[in-house]
Amino acid sequence: MRIPLSVLEFRDRAAALFGNVEAVIDGDRRFTYAEYAERTHRLANAIRGLGVAAEDRVTFISYNCHQLLEAYYGVLEAGAVLNPVNIRLAAPEIGYIIGHAGSTAVFYHADFRPMVEAMQADLPAVKRWVVMESPIEGPATHEYEALLADASPAYDPPEVDEDAMAELFYTSGTTGKPKGVVLTHRNLYLHGLAGALALRMTDADTMLHVVPLFHVNGWGAPHWMTMMGGRHVMLRKFDPGALLRLVAEHRVTYLLAVPTIFNALVNSPELGSHDLSSLKMAIIGGAPASPTLVRTIEEKLGCQAIVGYGLSETTPILSLAWPRAVLTAAEAPEMSAARQAMTGYAIAGVNLRVVDAEGADVLPDGEQIGEIVARSNTVMEGYYRDPEGTAEKIRDGWFHTGDMATIDEAGYISIKDRSKDIIIRGGENISSVEIENAFASHPAVLEVAVVAAPDDRWGEIPVALVVLKPDAAATAQQLRTHIRTQLADFKVPRQIEFRESLPKGGTGKILKAELREPFWAGRAARVN
Amino acid sequence: MRIPLSVLEFRDRAAALFGNVEAVIDGDRRFTYAEYAERTHRLANAIRGLGVAAEDRVTFISYNCHQLLEAYYGVLEAGAVLNPVNIRLAAPEIGYIIGHAGSTAVFYHADFRPMVEAMQADLPAVKRWVVMESPIEGPATHEYEALLADASPAYDPPEVDEDAMAELFYTSGTTGKPKGVVLTHRNLYLHGLAGALALRMTDADTMLHVVPLFHVNGWGAPHWMTMMGGRHVMLRKFDPGALLRLVAEHRVTYLLAVPTIFNALVNSPELGSHDLSSLKMAIIGGAPASPTLVRTIEEKLGCQAIVGYGLSETTPILSLAWPRAVLTAAEAPEMSAARQAMTGYAIAGVNLRVVDAEGADVLPDGEQIGEIVARSNTVMEGYYRDPEGTAEKIRDGWFHTGDMATIDEAGYISIKDRSKDIIIRGGENISSVEIENAFASHPAVLEVAVVAAPDDRWGEIPVALVVLKPDAAATAQQLRTHIRTQLADFKVPRQIEFRESLPKGGTGKILKAELREPFWAGRAARVN
Repeated sequence: MRIPLSVLEFRDRAAALFGNVEAVIDGDRRFTYAEYAERTHRLANAIRGLGVAAEDRVTFISYNCHQLLEAYYGVLEAGAVLNPVNIRLAAPEIGYIIGHAGSTAVFYHADFRPMVEAMQADLPAVKRWVVMESPIEGPATHEYEALLADASPAYDPPEVDEDAMAELFYTSGTTGKPKGVVLTHRNLYLHGLAGALALRMTDADTMLHVVPLFHVNGWGAPHWMTMMGGRHVMLRKFDPGALLRLVAEHRVTYLLAVPTIFNALVNSPELGSHDLSSLKMAIIGGAPASPTLVRTIEEKLGCQAIVGYGLSETTPILSLAWPRAVLTAAEAPEMSAARQAMTGYAIAGVNLRVVDAEGADVLPDGEQIGEIVARSNTVMEGYYRDPEGTAEKIRDGWFHTGDMATIDEAGYISIKDRSKDIIIRGGENISSVEIENAFASHPAVLEVAVVAAPDDRWGEIPVALVVLKPDAAATAQQLRTHIRTQLADFKVPRQIEFRESLPKGGTGKILKAELREPFWAGRAARVN
Repeated sequence: MRIPLSVLEFRDRAAALFGNVEAVIDGDRRFTYAEYAERTHRLANAIRGLGVAAEDRVTFISYNCHQLLEAYYGVLEAGAVLNPVNIRLAAPEIGYIIGHAGSTAVFYHADFRPMVEAMQADLPAVKRWVVMESPIEGPATHEYEALLADASPAYDPPEVDEDAMAELFYTSGTTGKPKGVVLTHRNLYLHGLAGALALRMTDADTMLHVVPLFHVNGWGAPHWMTMMGGRHVMLRKFDPGALLRLVAEHRVTYLLAVPTIFNALVNSPELGSHDLSSLKMAIIGGAPASPTLVRTIEEKLGCQAIVGYGLSETTPILSLAWPRAVLTAAEAPEMSAARQAMTGYAIAGVNLRVVDAEGADVLPDGEQIGEIVARSNTVMEGYYRDPEGTAEKIRDGWFHTGDMATIDEAGYISIKDRSKDIIIRGGENISSVEIENAFASHPAVLEVAVVAAPDDRWGEIPVALVVLKPDAAATAQQLRTHIRTQLADFKVPRQIEFRESLPKGGTGKILKAELREPFWAGRAARVN
């Protein structure tokens, strides 16, 4: 029997088996899976009623709220393509994305009205503007709840071509225009199964959606959690105290977030005031994490912490750093945190290699650095309307991540850098992450970024930008003495600058390109 | 990215990530995943060398041994189709299967030489007869280990059409000729992912292959365990003591078996002599289980026990009876064993309904009985060379299981009978399983089967065939008094016969058709 792979099956399963179970918690609003499913049917029929045709793109501009979670099934049930955009971008960037996607309907949260007003005139192809959580005014042509109330709750399953586009995400590339990542129904379905398996989710799990659903690491969750019948708890805006309160109140079991957010949590003054005993797993993604952070999360949040890795282009999960039964038994206990802080090993359904510039596997010695390449049914179909961009990243059947890493005999990958973040000092490749991890192990350090600066003698040298914890003190010399116990002398930054904070992007990732820029002012190139 | 779904990916992952891990334990023979993978490459090249063409069928006649486990990847890597046969069938039946499958090569364990000799003359299309664990003699043209030793260990991946047949199993139908169940690469791959997810397997798990790999419930395991990097422990012939010793020696975590085998285990005099603390899960499949058996397994084996359900035609797993977090919290504790003894609810990737004769859903009240129908990418493509048989079972996009069951609001299905085993007494449908469960709750009862006998007044009546535990005693009247506390009077069998043992089929299932037969001797029909 051959049935087109479709994530709608996941929602249908949840509605059939977990209909009475609390599915979505968004502030005071609560929906069971039966209610959630009905709202997605209404949304699908409403979208059809708006004149959105099959395969049309529908854009959502919103926080993590129940309406956005509804879009992940309602838009697909209508036969249309979901395009959720990064709300942290500027109006011209979002306008570019909507234009490039060719969306015919835009749903936006009322808080983004000024942004919509700024772009509306340039988007004549968008016929429908649906506002959420506000009466119709300004740019809006429709209001979300009224649309749903007027629509039929009947379920009219669409005909699905599993190889057709289902979701379209634009990557927040630091250079150039955003690129549209085309994910097919097949990509999403297989990632849903493989993701739930790899994350070891069950129906007893509750996930707090910390990462925005429109961003890498966020978008698999609407599918795998729903398939398992687990609970979705929405977090609209990040704040350590609010997050900890939600964990305690809703007995959250899984947290997925970037290192900077976990850093903020473990250093929050509210940490001791909440019952976090429900937490089972902290998955650290989006940027490399240090063994110190892994240990600190495990101590302070009282749950297991491992690193996960994925990209916009890979639906997203590629690897997780679960400790292996056989290694844990054989290895020294202190290796455990080190392993859990690695990039991890390929989840089932994904094939990962680390290759040199000629495409040959590097030695699996944990030392040689190469590029991570991936082959999987969860890798995107390609970039939307960009065959050149696609051909640049998918070559010879492998997706080239641009991440530079080592791999060991057990298949554990460790990212050493984005290829553009590698510091080449006198011909030696230096990993900025390795230096950052050494800084992170100092008790006074809250955050750190290491970037390459030009140097007349060495070509490039590492420069460290350090944020100390409140009330903590350390001199540059003290930090240097500390990290020299862990690193070769040539890796120790001569230049250490103290900052009040570091600039962060969409998911809370530190914007190293921005930090790097001033050091290269007045130069034609950005490598030396 | 679109890559043909193929279980070869699972073995490749295990070899890459778990190469040094002990993969297969078969008596004194041990193989790591690197060694196991290499042996499957050699087997693939050997099969090509035997002149087996792509899409040719290759039959295996064997116990659960490492060679059969190798076939699950080696045959597929050669581009051929694996056809493992039920060794408990008679020579003419196996001869029929090999002829119907059109196999060109047959691999057999030396213990089955007499059987091969009996059928060889009738199978001129079979050009190669490969004997395992014996020198070449009699019917054999090749010997397994010599073939592997002479073959290249190089891995030459085949081109896979995911919709093509990969494995061909013949169902041990109680009436008519065996039917060939065609499973495609896509069936197997999706069942591998969904099965591991549903069973909650990790790389820390060790599975004892109790159920023959050639039989329903057995054949998913070579794929999902390998994908997870868990350990396979082979059991060639069932014996309670041998099984318990293997659990203790290899720290087995998962047991899948039929009720009669678990019954034998919990009543084994050796039970107290082995350390079974490694056991995590007992999955009871192949026949309905009673809440008493679930509770007894949990007490005596010290692990969680749940029922699983599947058929030859469904790769096989359709449902599992995991307790649900939300129900467990809300329900009385005594409901837990009752739920875990139900047929369970659909695993992710499978859609199950219970329908009446017109195909409409029965009420989800746990009372109305209908037929279980399934829709999934893990349902077989069809019966081999039997379009009529296929059309009879797959109608309107649903596979008709022939199993009669109830379904409740939470989606838990409870099988009441095979449709042919329902007892119709004076127009009332009586479930033989319900009566069997009542008997099973009596402490003196080891095994029981309830079948329909003809009756002049009622049409049909239930008759119970009971095996008492060694050293236990109970009269028919005592048993009747016991079950009357649980069942309506019209369901209590007037006729109770004590037996020394009950006849069992391939997986240890009680052969109810055989027990039923004598009561109907001399009658034209088998319903009344």
